[in-house]
Amino acid sequence: MKTANGINLTMLCDFYELTMGNGYWQSGMKDRITYFDVFFRNVPDEGGYAVAAGLEQIVDYVQKLHFDEEDIEYLRGRGIFDESFLQYLKNFRFHGDIWAVPEGTPIFPREPVITVRAPAIEAQLLETYMLLEFNHQSLIATKASRICRAAEGRAVLEFGSRRAQGIAGAVTGARAAFIGGCAGTACTVSDQIYGVPAAGTMAHSWVQMFNSEYEAFETYCKTYPDNAVLLVDTFDTLRSGVPNAIRAFNNILKPRGITRCGIRLDSGDMAYLTKKARAMLDEAGWTECKITVSNSLDERLIRDLIRQGAQIDSFGVGERLITSKSAPVFGGVYKLCAVDAEDGTRIPKIKISENLGKITNPDFKKLYRFYDRETGKAEADYICLREETVDDTRPITICDPVARWKKKTLDSYRAVELQVPVFLNGELVYDLPALPDIKAYCAAQLETLWPEVKRFNNPHEYYVDLSENLMNLKDEMLNSFGRRNSGDAAE
Amino acid sequence: MKTANGINLTMLCDFYELTMGNGYWQSGMKDRITYFDVFFRNVPDEGGYAVAAGLEQIVDYVQKLHFDEEDIEYLRGRGIFDESFLQYLKNFRFHGDIWAVPEGTPIFPREPVITVRAPAIEAQLLETYMLLEFNHQSLIATKASRICRAAEGRAVLEFGSRRAQGIAGAVTGARAAFIGGCAGTACTVSDQIYGVPAAGTMAHSWVQMFNSEYEAFETYCKTYPDNAVLLVDTFDTLRSGVPNAIRAFNNILKPRGITRCGIRLDSGDMAYLTKKARAMLDEAGWTECKITVSNSLDERLIRDLIRQGAQIDSFGVGERLITSKSAPVFGGVYKLCAVDAEDGTRIPKIKISENLGKITNPDFKKLYRFYDRETGKAEADYICLREETVDDTRPITICDPVARWKKKTLDSYRAVELQVPVFLNGELVYDLPALPDIKAYCAAQLETLWPEVKRFNNPHEYYVDLSENLMNLKDEMLNSFGRRNSGDAAE
Repeated sequence: MKTANGINLTMLCDFYELTMGNGYWQSGMKDRITYFDVFFRNVPDEGGYAVAAGLEQIVDYVQKLHFDEEDIEYLRGRGIFDESFLQYLKNFRFHGDIWAVPEGTPIFPREPVITVRAPAIEAQLLETYMLLEFNHQSLIATKASRICRAAEGRAVLEFGSRRAQGIAGAVTGARAAFIGGCAGTACTVSDQIYGVPAAGTMAHSWVQMFNSEYEAFETYCKTYPDNAVLLVDTFDTLRSGVPNAIRAFNNILKPRGITRCGIRLDSGDMAYLTKKARAMLDEAGWTECKITVSNSLDERLIRDLIRQGAQIDSFGVGERLITSKSAPVFGGVYKLCAVDAEDGTRIPKIKISENLGKITNPDFKKLYRFYDRETGKAEADYICLREETVDDTRPITICDPVARWKKKTLDSYRAVELQVPVFLNGELVYDLPALPDIKAYCAAQLETLWPEVKRFNNPHEYYVDLSENLMNLKDEMLNSFGRRNSGDAAE
Repeated sequence: MKTANGINLTMLCDFYELTMGNGYWQSGMKDRITYFDVFFRNVPDEGGYAVAAGLEQIVDYVQKLHFDEEDIEYLRGRGIFDESFLQYLKNFRFHGDIWAVPEGTPIFPREPVITVRAPAIEAQLLETYMLLEFNHQSLIATKASRICRAAEGRAVLEFGSRRAQGIAGAVTGARAAFIGGCAGTACTVSDQIYGVPAAGTMAHSWVQMFNSEYEAFETYCKTYPDNAVLLVDTFDTLRSGVPNAIRAFNNILKPRGITRCGIRLDSGDMAYLTKKARAMLDEAGWTECKITVSNSLDERLIRDLIRQGAQIDSFGVGERLITSKSAPVFGGVYKLCAVDAEDGTRIPKIKISENLGKITNPDFKKLYRFYDRETGKAEADYICLREETVDDTRPITICDPVARWKKKTLDSYRAVELQVPVFLNGELVYDLPALPDIKAYCAAQLETLWPEVKRFNNPHEYYVDLSENLMNLKDEMLNSFGRRNSGDAAE
């Protein structure tokens, strides 16, 4: 029996990638160079920014692209693919270029986060998995970033594996949560393969297994004197759990001179119970005992608990983080923005929509972020044609692509290109950063955002502007479509 | 670089399963026989029933349970596990019993869906992955069941891979959606490994790749004359897309005598556009042309569209199905319900909570479903102690476990035990049904539910009652806890 754990990811594609690929093959278009952008339109939870994640897994996927003999057999069995196309797939690999913003970068709607330049079939095949991985990990990194900011420096641990949407939901989910700010995870294998620190001590079942709660606590303290975190809510937190924990600490830890320990609460009113528990622990001399809580938490409840003076040292966050429950979809899309003509000239492409926000930005582009030289804060992002270059020694006037009367001139700014080359001619040219470095980079980049952009509710909309050349091109293409809107298609 | 695709799933466990395991090992409790139930408390989307799924993957996981040398190395590196425990893990496998309701069964809150009887360490280790798989697949099967019922017999295709939460989110998600009623998926590999029929034709990029929309359609019809489903909304559905589609059908399909074809709409107002498109197609003689739509659909929008007379033959449903967007968490839990004492007598265990609904049902249990002999409809589920047997030739009076004045006597009913043995003494004893059979079983079982239970909003709460013996045992345990609630713990 095959399982989703251990499949050839090349086959994790929407079937239409293959029908289109075969179509390009049969109509002589397989080598046409295409340009695709990955971008998204809305920040989950109506937040002000998202966090890019998933690139490392996309790189791994691209490097391993191939069709096994059994994959070819399956496709042949479908009876619609040309035999020469199937032969071509046998030696399939990626020959194109990929640029992407590094993992951990704060990103904003409508800007090209990943750009692919490759022969049509190759570029098309990447679509499904690339979006899946980018969408999933960016979703969780973004949610983790919100939750960790709500915790105001207290540790947040990712506890959600059992409620995750499938294996990778848990495993790469824990990785993305770490990028977004979590201190660790409960998921052992995410530590083993990605180095996300895994921790955990006991479930209610441990407490129930013994003849009494005290016996359960005492046994645990004896087994793990250096990391005795006791779950105190199996029966009654304040009348049974905390007193039994203190008794076990006194009897087992104190004689060994151990002062560090912890309790965890998984039910009940966290503000009331943690204040009472803190007082009981302090009175008993266990001032270094840490309090962890872990029931149905998210950024809103955490913020409220802190505001109410709850005595909490760290948060274990489960289903509401690992599924981004309040906003479980990251809507990244993969859109064609240009095609090389047979003579090699690049033809920009646009996708029209009645919804203004759904109209794509045409052509092969570049993405800059402008940081103020004095404050270091990010002031705006700027999308221009690939051939354009921003000279940040000179002032620049940027303009809102929809509300065009909104202009702003920047005088003293540093322009940083956000996309880096990842693959060139099919070869990996990017040094993948280590996970702790991605996490640190993310934290540092978040510091460059104004607090107004990071507000949970109704944040300031960060500027993502288009260069004049790009805006003019877009206008021309829309006008040209408008002029012949009843006939045959636009380009 | 390791990835979440191809890990040892044995390591996909919360770290506390291992700290508890080592704790049981060191305190001489590793062979204590424990009983755990998997159950859930609330139906997603406030629905009236859920659909059980994921058992096949759980079986595969249990059969493959093992620790590799590198897993042991990782654990040794953590510095907290006893060396003899690590040696024990080298030969770890599952020796216990598992009973479960078959995949596709409608299930209800608080009833034991899966029951595990095994030595403490083994039973504990299963927790994380078993819940993950059950929760994920039951979530998607349940959502698919709602969406497919809304479609009233029209085909629903699962289109959400790119928005899925990780690899298995897409791959086993498509499997679960199929169980719940979907006709197929866009996800190629779910067809290859599970046999969920995969289909798809073209994206907007295909249309944009050509010099004109007509050329794109013509080329597609030539390549796939037998399955020409054209995406008509790239530029303007009614003024460009549908006319170009009709022209391509006329020029390419008609001369070949082909009458079957299709169009797909991915944007715009689906009710208005499909009615207009249907009229245009019919007028042009393409009465057999099917109309598929695919933008932000879920059960509510599908029901509304049908009510408004939209002319739709099939639905492609993406992110709102593959993440169960409106309710993305299935809250299955794994709770200890009994432990064998050293002398082999079974000691029931209960988890107390201030919230009545969170108090667990103690002891090793059995689950029956009562079907009315005349109507064939499911009237109630009934949970009793494992040693109890229902004789369905005699009337039975059942009683609501909370509102105890609510009683009901059944005279003519068929009692069916819902859990089947899956593993006994570590050996698989269950013939895993084929996927189409699971799907058919699910559809047949849904027919046994009264329409009142299947209502989308405010459905009738299906009866899940407890036997008198079980209710008495629970009362005794709660009373006994109440009598000594300020001291040391209950059992």
